[in-house]
Amino acid sequence: MRASTLVSSSLVAGLALLSACGSGSTGGTDQTTQLDVDIPANMFEPVAATAPDLPNNAATPERVALGKMLFFEPRLSASWLISCNTCHNLGLAGVDLQETSVGHGWQRGPRNAPTVLNAVYNVAQFWDGRAANLEEQAKGPVQAGVEMNNTQDRVVATLKSIPEYVDRFHAAFPEDTDPVSFDNMARAIEVYEATLLTPDSRFDLYLKGDVSALSASEKQGLQLFISKGCTACHNGINIGGRAYFPFGVVNRPDAEILPRDDMGRFKVTHVTTDEYVFRVAALRNVALTPPYFHSGKVWDLGEAVRVMGTAQLGSNLTDADVEAITAFLHTLNGRQPDVSYPILPPSGPDTPRPMTGPTGTR
Amino acid sequence: MRASTLVSSSLVAGLALLSACGSGSTGGTDQTTQLDVDIPANMFEPVAATAPDLPNNAATPERVALGKMLFFEPRLSASWLISCNTCHNLGLAGVDLQETSVGHGWQRGPRNAPTVLNAVYNVAQFWDGRAANLEEQAKGPVQAGVEMNNTQDRVVATLKSIPEYVDRFHAAFPEDTDPVSFDNMARAIEVYEATLLTPDSRFDLYLKGDVSALSASEKQGLQLFISKGCTACHNGINIGGRAYFPFGVVNRPDAEILPRDDMGRFKVTHVTTDEYVFRVAALRNVALTPPYFHSGKVWDLGEAVRVMGTAQLGSNLTDADVEAITAFLHTLNGRQPDVSYPILPPSGPDTPRPMTGPTGTR
Repeated sequence: MRASTLVSSSLVAGLALLSACGSGSTGGTDQTTQLDVDIPANMFEPVAATAPDLPNNAATPERVALGKMLFFEPRLSASWLISCNTCHNLGLAGVDLQETSVGHGWQRGPRNAPTVLNAVYNVAQFWDGRAANLEEQAKGPVQAGVEMNNTQDRVVATLKSIPEYVDRFHAAFPEDTDPVSFDNMARAIEVYEATLLTPDSRFDLYLKGDVSALSASEKQGLQLFISKGCTACHNGINIGGRAYFPFGVVNRPDAEILPRDDMGRFKVTHVTTDEYVFRVAALRNVALTPPYFHSGKVWDLGEAVRVMGTAQLGSNLTDADVEAITAFLHTLNGRQPDVSYPILPPSGPDTPRPMTGPTGTR
Repeated sequence: MRASTLVSSSLVAGLALLSACGSGSTGGTDQTTQLDVDIPANMFEPVAATAPDLPNNAATPERVALGKMLFFEPRLSASWLISCNTCHNLGLAGVDLQETSVGHGWQRGPRNAPTVLNAVYNVAQFWDGRAANLEEQAKGPVQAGVEMNNTQDRVVATLKSIPEYVDRFHAAFPEDTDPVSFDNMARAIEVYEATLLTPDSRFDLYLKGDVSALSASEKQGLQLFISKGCTACHNGINIGGRAYFPFGVVNRPDAEILPRDDMGRFKVTHVTTDEYVFRVAALRNVALTPPYFHSGKVWDLGEAVRVMGTAQLGSNLTDADVEAITAFLHTLNGRQPDVSYPILPPSGPDTPRPMTGPTGTR
């Protein structure tokens, strides 16, 4: 490994964001409780029980219900075999447990699927932040050749051919004259995904003042997580996900973990200092979402912590430190969403048939 | 097409079964109501609201809950990408809407996936009846190279490596000293699948005495369904599924619909008269489960009715007859199961990793 001298424009933005959070209450929502780990003010925030309001996307019951159906709808893919839930399985903490995701034609995509749970809290979507929000994100995999391999026209034709969806789009977007659109598909999915939150993790109970929610070793791990500097990147409500940093702030990991042909955010900004820069991983439910990193090459959470110590902090963490930090990370598992499986409407006579071959073929 | 002179041993058994149902109450559970379509006694039976008891497989809450998790568990497949629900999607009436199913490595299987809904009522499982019950059925796709491509040893190693599953198998099979077994996996899945019933179809409401549940044209379709002879095969609680008949009792369909290399039940019994014999399709929810036949080559339900008329009855049904029978078949859509999506337990350190390559490779 070699020392990296990168100074990322995104990194500077990230640090500016942090410095804006200089003072305020301690940790969580309860400002009066004295916690036995010293948490800097405003460093963390518990996950909410209900979805945040989204700009220009009203969470009406009709829209959320439609979004849930579309999230589970395999007919959004060319093959009718892949839905959002395929790679963001709500029974598996919103991931697929694959190194990198497998899509149309059993093709393997380039990066590990981040969880959809709590994703609404992230500053932007995808590992490189190329989608500003979940609405924009939802449009990507539907059209990606290695994922759902569909086209906007075919998706709209499919949805318009299914009578119940036409009715539901009208109910969900009552002010639109032509509501069955690719944009509205993505908006409905966004508003549903914003409901996929995992409150009441033991860490959040602790933040709210229940000092018995964490064990001694977990508290020690939390203390180390702060004192070693992990919180420089992993902070806020999602314990990450709100800024960009190079993978290898101090030492660039080897090419197995950080493949050199994936330059990360550079592909989005084309700024040299964004080479190998990624959105900070959000650590909510991290113990449930192996394998780790954008490459998905590390399966063991302790090993991932060790890699982070070397690469980002220039610190060879001791076995005891790794163990304690890993114990703390397990306390970030929250209450998983209670989802009733949606019944999807029957196709119509004009619904385009599934195509399992390469694009443009059956 | 040519006339078939096959007399199937299974056919004889099927007819014997029918003749055993000679007398009794009219249609449904309410023996006092006069229906306005004359339904021979014991021809049909409404779907029950609760699962039937299974021989030697007690439906304890622990076993049913475990079975539901396993039904949705992609780690039963070698790739971790395919679960029972992939091809028997409970949001899509228990099917995948594919001509024939797509499995490991995007391989296409040989036959259309029958619905899991109400499957417990079938005399045996698979199109050729090669599995005596749902327990036996569940073991097939897990091990089939073109489906989930796993091995019994690897499934057991996987389940034993996941602590929560070990606990749940102990709770579900409390009398077993080594409860985490391939057999018990299948038993748990069977007992869950037996709960996947669709009661309260409009036809069942009619059978129970609500003469307003069907429209005039639907009643006309029901009358034709009986008078034309469809009920010779499609009878009982599942409107089929309880006997074997040749596909092409009178006229063998062309090779597009009845591929000549799939000899059906002959492959199970090796009796010449079982060539091109299949288990009668169960017609519950049939309007929701295109495409049709074991080959999945017919997408339009009316067209499937027309093919049946020619092939099985030697009758060229008129357009009006086809329309009425199809209208009746739509009344067989029942109330779909209300399923809460299960949260699956995290893997352990020794859980075998997913393998997406051909058998024996990663």
